[in-house]
Amino acid sequence: MSLPTTSVTELFAPVKDDLHTLTDNLKQLVGARHPILYAAAEHLFEAKGKSMRPALVLLVSRATMSDRDITSRHRRLAEITEMIHTASLVHDDVIDSADLRRGMPTVNNSFGNRIAVLAGDFLFAQASWYLANLDHLEVVKLLSKVITDFAEGEIRQSLTAFDSDLTLEDYLEKSFYKTASLMAGSAKAAGVLSGVSQVQAEQLFNFGKHFGIAFQVVDDILDFTSSTETLGKPAGSDLKQGNLTAPVLFALEEHPQLRGLIEREFSEVGDLEKALELVHNSEGISRSRDLAKSHVKSAFTAIEWLPSSAPKQSLIGLTNYVLDRLY
Amino acid sequence: MSLPTTSVTELFAPVKDDLHTLTDNLKQLVGARHPILYAAAEHLFEAKGKSMRPALVLLVSRATMSDRDITSRHRRLAEITEMIHTASLVHDDVIDSADLRRGMPTVNNSFGNRIAVLAGDFLFAQASWYLANLDHLEVVKLLSKVITDFAEGEIRQSLTAFDSDLTLEDYLEKSFYKTASLMAGSAKAAGVLSGVSQVQAEQLFNFGKHFGIAFQVVDDILDFTSSTETLGKPAGSDLKQGNLTAPVLFALEEHPQLRGLIEREFSEVGDLEKALELVHNSEGISRSRDLAKSHVKSAFTAIEWLPSSAPKQSLIGLTNYVLDRLY
Repeated sequence: MSLPTTSVTELFAPVKDDLHTLTDNLKQLVGARHPILYAAAEHLFEAKGKSMRPALVLLVSRATMSDRDITSRHRRLAEITEMIHTASLVHDDVIDSADLRRGMPTVNNSFGNRIAVLAGDFLFAQASWYLANLDHLEVVKLLSKVITDFAEGEIRQSLTAFDSDLTLEDYLEKSFYKTASLMAGSAKAAGVLSGVSQVQAEQLFNFGKHFGIAFQVVDDILDFTSSTETLGKPAGSDLKQGNLTAPVLFALEEHPQLRGLIEREFSEVGDLEKALELVHNSEGISRSRDLAKSHVKSAFTAIEWLPSSAPKQSLIGLTNYVLDRLY
Repeated sequence: MSLPTTSVTELFAPVKDDLHTLTDNLKQLVGARHPILYAAAEHLFEAKGKSMRPALVLLVSRATMSDRDITSRHRRLAEITEMIHTASLVHDDVIDSADLRRGMPTVNNSFGNRIAVLAGDFLFAQASWYLANLDHLEVVKLLSKVITDFAEGEIRQSLTAFDSDLTLEDYLEKSFYKTASLMAGSAKAAGVLSGVSQVQAEQLFNFGKHFGIAFQVVDDILDFTSSTETLGKPAGSDLKQGNLTAPVLFALEEHPQLRGLIEREFSEVGDLEKALELVHNSEGISRSRDLAKSHVKSAFTAIEWLPSSAPKQSLIGLTNYVLDRLY
């Protein structure tokens, strides 16, 4: 669990060429056919750090199959994963009226809601088309479930905004739907395409699930601890929008006065600042860190059975990297 | 081709019970899980005339299979068809910033873009999930193609707004993507589930295609000839939004001055009124009627081979009804 910190680029090394091809394919797919979506596609598929999901799929593929047996279906699965993820980001930004993502203007900000809804629908549609053409019913079901989970996660987030009765369990479920489901479903799907056993496929699902939850918890911590500059979007924006994440839920146990601020939706001057201060003056951040750590640990356990290989080492390294982002 | 005009209710008779169950199922599906989407679901799945697509699927199912052999997969296919259609309507209304549909406030109008994007995504997601669970790869592919076509149609409409170089062929292609693809793909899928031959499956596709194109052309004529009251949305709104349909494309051949008005996007006072007048003082409407008629005729030809039955008579009656809406 305590590998030396390596750069993400190094960790991606075993699938570097695959990722290159993938980015080109995705840009071509969207850009070539519809020039108006080209600019959108360009920055969508090139933004730094965006290739975590296809990298996981490709690493699982190579960790479960010899390099020469990796199929075009494994690669296509990685593309589908990135399409689904990108489509969900584009629609999320419409839903949240977000102006910035990773420091870049969002599609809705640059091109308006009209193009953003279209671009998201187009990507979801392409993903479902390529998915059907993988000719593998189990994989179709796994990824269709992911798409349903995204919608479910967004709806839950929407319905529970500013709801201070939200439990940690609700939060973890929502995080699974919004983030971990894609990593879990696609890691399992990669294994299924490699022909792993059913037990191993479940383990890959668990790996993706725990990786994804840890990833989301860390993201939620960073929303409190990072600067607007580092985040590429305004810091504290989750709380402002009533999206109650792990640090707030833990802080609520210590500081009941936080509840009132949330329930009046930070409507009075200074409310948001006061709430942020209460979170910082609580065990919220450190308990969230422990929560992320425990999921990282479960992720490690889930792939212990994989035979030693460079891709396996990268999977371990990327799982460590999830926590490294905090330091 | 000249059946006496029958009411749609009578034509739906062979599948009346199926449609009842379908509406209940769909309302439950969306409404029960997410009360906030309930109001949306209610008016979405109950609006008058909305059940044309599932009715076609169910009629094709019963025309290609004996009543006792109709499977739950046929019924599920009808539900999926309605979900995809409804999802596309909800997103269309966001894209077009439409306030009214069939005289009812749109989802974006009543609940905002946020809920409308969510509701559409949720319906598309559910559709793709149920689709995968039909456990029939060919049907999954057929309907996934439909979802892709929707997005393609919307994008084309968006890209060619106010483009007076649009050809009739472009228009027909766009109409296929936006309307006919769903009817074609789902009619064929119903036949595939019934185990018809490949040639017959193709014929069912053609039936749906021509039915759908005729349906769209008639809709586009009605946008010029109906009152705002009958339409349930402002008359002439296609032209106003730069959506150039059959009547305009024909009128452009007679009245070149129409081009200028379109190209300046009706920016001067009285432009839109002048354009509408030019369309009415042209053969545009009657040539569009002939175009719709020719597709109705092709739709009839495509189902000649079906054995005589009450559902077949309903399919013929509904195809006639497409034109009846004009009188």
